[in-house]
Amino acid sequence: MQYPEPIAKLIDSYMKLPGIGQKTATRLAFYTIDMKDEVVNDFAKALLSAKRDLHFCSVCGNITEEDPCEICRDTTRDRSTILVVEEPKDVMAMEKMREYHGLYHVLHGVLSPMEGTGPEDINLATLIKRLHDDSVKEVIIATNATTEGEATAMYLSRLIKPAGIKVTRLAHGLSVGSDIEYADEVTLLKAVEGRREL
Amino acid sequence: MQYPEPIAKLIDSYMKLPGIGQKTATRLAFYTIDMKDEVVNDFAKALLSAKRDLHFCSVCGNITEEDPCEICRDTTRDRSTILVVEEPKDVMAMEKMREYHGLYHVLHGVLSPMEGTGPEDINLATLIKRLHDDSVKEVIIATNATTEGEATAMYLSRLIKPAGIKVTRLAHGLSVGSDIEYADEVTLLKAVEGRREL
Repeated sequence: MQYPEPIAKLIDSYMKLPGIGQKTATRLAFYTIDMKDEVVNDFAKALLSAKRDLHFCSVCGNITEEDPCEICRDTTRDRSTILVVEEPKDVMAMEKMREYHGLYHVLHGVLSPMEGTGPEDINLATLIKRLHDDSVKEVIIATNATTEGEATAMYLSRLIKPAGIKVTRLAHGLSVGSDIEYADEVTLLKAVEGRREL
Repeated sequence: MQYPEPIAKLIDSYMKLPGIGQKTATRLAFYTIDMKDEVVNDFAKALLSAKRDLHFCSVCGNITEEDPCEICRDTTRDRSTILVVEEPKDVMAMEKMREYHGLYHVLHGVLSPMEGTGPEDINLATLIKRLHDDSVKEVIIATNATTEGEATAMYLSRLIKPAGIKVTRLAHGLSVGSDIEYADEVTLLKAVEGRREL
């Protein structure tokens, strides 16, 4: 005996999500059957709405319901600074800080020769176009502290600096609240290199 | 800035699933946005279908599209044996074994005085009704090897035995392929108690 088709299909769908294998998918599917009707209806609606109603901002590439996005439309924000991130969720992480009031640019990826991702495969052309606007004074590169993120930062820096725009990179060092004992060597090295006078 | 509403709602929905917290839900939601349209559509359909098209079999309580379920309708199965399990997924686990050809009964829970689950809160009345049929000769109790599962097994045994029906319980002992060294004391005790002559 196989699982009844509706549950087999639901298990298949759950298995398409990252980090969810057969066992977890089965558990989630059976849990779903026991959930309230309206909760499951809302879930289905949310899935469809996320695909249908979300678009990428034509200016910065962030996800948004309206184009341009809320941040790009906000006239109170500092238009002289653009912070470049890899993914839309990085914008959210930055916004949670509540201390950055400039604009963003989402690359939707990083340069990765290993995976064949070149400058034309990420949202780079629109960034260059944005820099033609004289109001931009600084580009803060906030790609991840990975090999690809660093390489992308270097590439962007070489591309943008000649235009006379200041290019900065987020500081790397020890996480706040972390123990030196547990920090990895590369992080420690970055922390020493980036030391500041008290 | 908050997440755009469609993604916030999707994160909320993912968080309703067991074992999925805010971080994982956010990761899944952003992953969903990058999934193909038809995959997300299928997911939404599968969710709705699982709630709409699946019912509990009026005879055994297993999940099914048609009532009575495939197993209860199957005339080639041995109607003299009923195997009692806690949840529909336990039926699937048993069926994977391909060696049991009797019927099932799904309790949809176990007796738990701690959580206030009494005999009237689980699918017990229909089981008693089924036992009035003279063709039933044996009830195999396959509740989980937990305190509640054991208590439920004892309760069922006392309830059914007086009717002259044989009541058995699945054997407890070492998992096949496991090391004695790593077995817990209770499992080892059960394995010694249930030893068989070679």
